[in-house]
Amino acid sequence: MPLSMYQISVPAFVRGLKVLSDLLKKGEAFAEEQGMIPDVLFNASLAADMMPLSAQVQHACDTAKMSVARLSGVKAPSMEDNEATFQQLQERIDATLAYLESVGRELVDQAESKEITLNWEAIQPTFGGADYQISFGLPNFYFHLVTAYGILRSQGVDIGKIDYLGPYPQ
Amino acid sequence: MPLSMYQISVPAFVRGLKVLSDLLKKGEAFAEEQGMIPDVLFNASLAADMMPLSAQVQHACDTAKMSVARLSGVKAPSMEDNEATFQQLQERIDATLAYLESVGRELVDQAESKEITLNWEAIQPTFGGADYQISFGLPNFYFHLVTAYGILRSQGVDIGKIDYLGPYPQ
Repeated sequence: MPLSMYQISVPAFVRGLKVLSDLLKKGEAFAEEQGMIPDVLFNASLAADMMPLSAQVQHACDTAKMSVARLSGVKAPSMEDNEATFQQLQERIDATLAYLESVGRELVDQAESKEITLNWEAIQPTFGGADYQISFGLPNFYFHLVTAYGILRSQGVDIGKIDYLGPYPQ
Repeated sequence: MPLSMYQISVPAFVRGLKVLSDLLKKGEAFAEEQGMIPDVLFNASLAADMMPLSAQVQHACDTAKMSVARLSGVKAPSMEDNEATFQQLQERIDATLAYLESVGRELVDQAESKEITLNWEAIQPTFGGADYQISFGLPNFYFHLVTAYGILRSQGVDIGKIDYLGPYPQ
């Protein structure tokens, strides 16, 4: 089976979001064990002017959702960025996973040369579908996933690289 | 042109390593401006038991190099992990880029279903080539790139998301 746009998109995001969900469960359990106010972990960041853990999770979800929406043309559910608990972050991940898993493989596969233009204030870059996913969607998604991991680690949560890498083929 | 193993491997790693090189240049300039001993930035990490900046750069290079070596069968140059200056880290990135750019496209493209087994102590997982790159090579590479970014940011280096995302199509 030839390599497909679907294969480098949906399963990669699904895998990463499940890893993120597991990392957050360990973070929440850690906060409870330490008697930490959950908000401390929720609002922790790597630098004063970087986004906190909660926003990294929101952005990881949005990057996955918007990438697949742009590639497939299937509208993604809007989300309000109002999560205030770990449980609500888990629900956002679940809703994102449900959207990703609902999108037909053929709609993503046909997006290889589809033009995708990002409407930012300063620039409006246009990518081909494959380039979009390889040079923007995936790097951006991993940015938020790895930064969430880094925040949890920097706050002392007992996770390691193996938790980030996730399950392997048996 | 159908999506290829080469496209999701070599150009993605090359792009990321060039971003890493630029981030390190800004880090080095920052250390000089601040009159910081360069070793402070070089040895900074996000947690006491996480690898420092220098090792994140070494591992980003190795993940790119070893992924392409495993996929293509083209032996990668060995590197000693003895870099002690920013200049030496840049040379390591350059040597990795030279290797990546030397590997023939067709050798990577034919690796889609090639079996790749990792020889770790605890487990020896076997991946198909495409799964290896999508679920191990790329996530692992971005782990080290994003962690290097996070270390620089957490130490006050004046970089932002746009530096991580790198150049866009014009």
